[in-house]
Amino acid sequence: MKEFDFIRHYLHTQADGNIILGIGDDAAIIRPKMGWDLCASSDMLVADRHFFADVAPSDLAYKSLAVNLSDMAAMGATPRWVMLSVALPELNETWLNEFCASWFQTCQDFQVSLIGGDTTKGKDIILNVNIWGEVPQGLGLRRSAAQVGDDIWVSGQIGLAAAALKHHLQEICLPPALYAVCNQALLRPQPRVALGQGLLHIAHAAQDISDGLLQDLDHILCASQKGAVLQLEHIPTLPELKQHLNKQQWQECVLAGGDDYELLFTASPKQRTIIEQIAQQTQTPVNRIGSIVPQADGIRIMQKDHTEYRPNKKGFDHFGTH
Amino acid sequence: MKEFDFIRHYLHTQADGNIILGIGDDAAIIRPKMGWDLCASSDMLVADRHFFADVAPSDLAYKSLAVNLSDMAAMGATPRWVMLSVALPELNETWLNEFCASWFQTCQDFQVSLIGGDTTKGKDIILNVNIWGEVPQGLGLRRSAAQVGDDIWVSGQIGLAAAALKHHLQEICLPPALYAVCNQALLRPQPRVALGQGLLHIAHAAQDISDGLLQDLDHILCASQKGAVLQLEHIPTLPELKQHLNKQQWQECVLAGGDDYELLFTASPKQRTIIEQIAQQTQTPVNRIGSIVPQADGIRIMQKDHTEYRPNKKGFDHFGTH
Repeated sequence: MKEFDFIRHYLHTQADGNIILGIGDDAAIIRPKMGWDLCASSDMLVADRHFFADVAPSDLAYKSLAVNLSDMAAMGATPRWVMLSVALPELNETWLNEFCASWFQTCQDFQVSLIGGDTTKGKDIILNVNIWGEVPQGLGLRRSAAQVGDDIWVSGQIGLAAAALKHHLQEICLPPALYAVCNQALLRPQPRVALGQGLLHIAHAAQDISDGLLQDLDHILCASQKGAVLQLEHIPTLPELKQHLNKQQWQECVLAGGDDYELLFTASPKQRTIIEQIAQQTQTPVNRIGSIVPQADGIRIMQKDHTEYRPNKKGFDHFGTH
Repeated sequence: MKEFDFIRHYLHTQADGNIILGIGDDAAIIRPKMGWDLCASSDMLVADRHFFADVAPSDLAYKSLAVNLSDMAAMGATPRWVMLSVALPELNETWLNEFCASWFQTCQDFQVSLIGGDTTKGKDIILNVNIWGEVPQGLGLRRSAAQVGDDIWVSGQIGLAAAALKHHLQEICLPPALYAVCNQALLRPQPRVALGQGLLHIAHAAQDISDGLLQDLDHILCASQKGAVLQLEHIPTLPELKQHLNKQQWQECVLAGGDDYELLFTASPKQRTIIEQIAQQTQTPVNRIGSIVPQADGIRIMQKDHTEYRPNKKGFDHFGTH
């Protein structure tokens, strides 16, 4: 199958009132809505680095889109348009059919339209997804807006994806049922798009957790020039996972694991009730895990017994360096 | 050097009144101008497929941006924002310094701003550039707008990049001075942005030549449901190249070579004078190479002696299949 056959056969632009011209020209044409800003993000996924080369094509398609949708969630933006560039060692029709079925299903589920991209031959599978979303002018959630006194919130459960990855890498061994749950979190993270949109006007700073809770929190703290106190035991996780792992393994998974694609955000304590309501409306569990403090106080992680936990610096390259 | 150091050290967003938020958050934020559409395109470049792995980083940076600027030129759009994703086998500071110096110089030359992207480790060098540009509402040049009777125009000189590539691949041998000129065309194609903008309201269909003149013309003909008559001898080329190559080699270079990144466009014969003026104003040579005819007439390529040239189908996968 030739490139143009591939493009014609598999790729198409879904209807969308703002798409003036879809796939099939030198560029797509979009008509932006008045009064809205556009948010743009891009992620490159490389085989054997971001995913196992033998991953199911349906899971790969889902995740490559999900991690980009998660960036839109972190801005409070409504995802609208995506571009997909793919390097593939071969055009295998079974693989492509499964990939595209999952890709377009996910596009439909999150109401985004594919408007372009590129396909090329490459030694390894490499995907680049570029996403654009809309947010009311001036309201996009930034990393730099955390205030002293803010609560620090996190959605969902943390550390599951990291545990599944450690199991794959034979660093830990999970029993089958627990592995299944964690692997689902790794392969099918839930972009918190509805929660992100709900947090416009409510949250101060926001970010999604891709590199690990501490590192991503550090991005907010650096950008906002603030510090934080975290309550280790308040970090939401799967109880069975915490029970199964030893203390160090569990701490590594929740603090430095990454790949969670949950939202980490800060908001005034006055917003607690409304945040709980938004969480309920969007069916997204949220938990308070700490507070923003002045920058001079750095990051402190408190344990149940009120002693401070000092993480092994390995895996926390930028921990404490803001 | 770690990823975040790399991002902080090398990548930055240039000032632009429409950029609300640049590199360094989950997404960039852009404020679109009222009354303008946005054009979007994306190109993935893979080592040893789109460029030689030992290409000078400055040339690679230039070309990865130029091919995307060329897509904007083909729409008549003003390029504005780019995102760059890079997979690299290693973070070599000399390589990165040269790459980034050329990248940002080219951004400045064409007044585009880097607003985001991604960096990752990969076995081979892979770049993905995503570009967005602005065009007045409804005016974007499309492939589908060719009319029967239109002149077919092409900018610059065709076949030089293909000749340089054939020299690299030892399919032909060019003398040093000729090779130098052709290799410059391969490494440093000139995106015809000013010409494209000048053609708004004037041209009917437009496209840039990346896959080869015949194949790219075929895209216009398919999209417009038209045919074409080309005058082979009118295709602008470098006289020394034509003289050096045998007839078949030259025809392959100009008809099927690709990598020219010249504009191919159609316009009513009434526009000839104004097109010549625009060409002069934008210092872009243009030539008429044929006419649009009804679809039933297909593509005919006429030689100087008025006989028809029938190209070897190899390399013309989609030739005549519209």
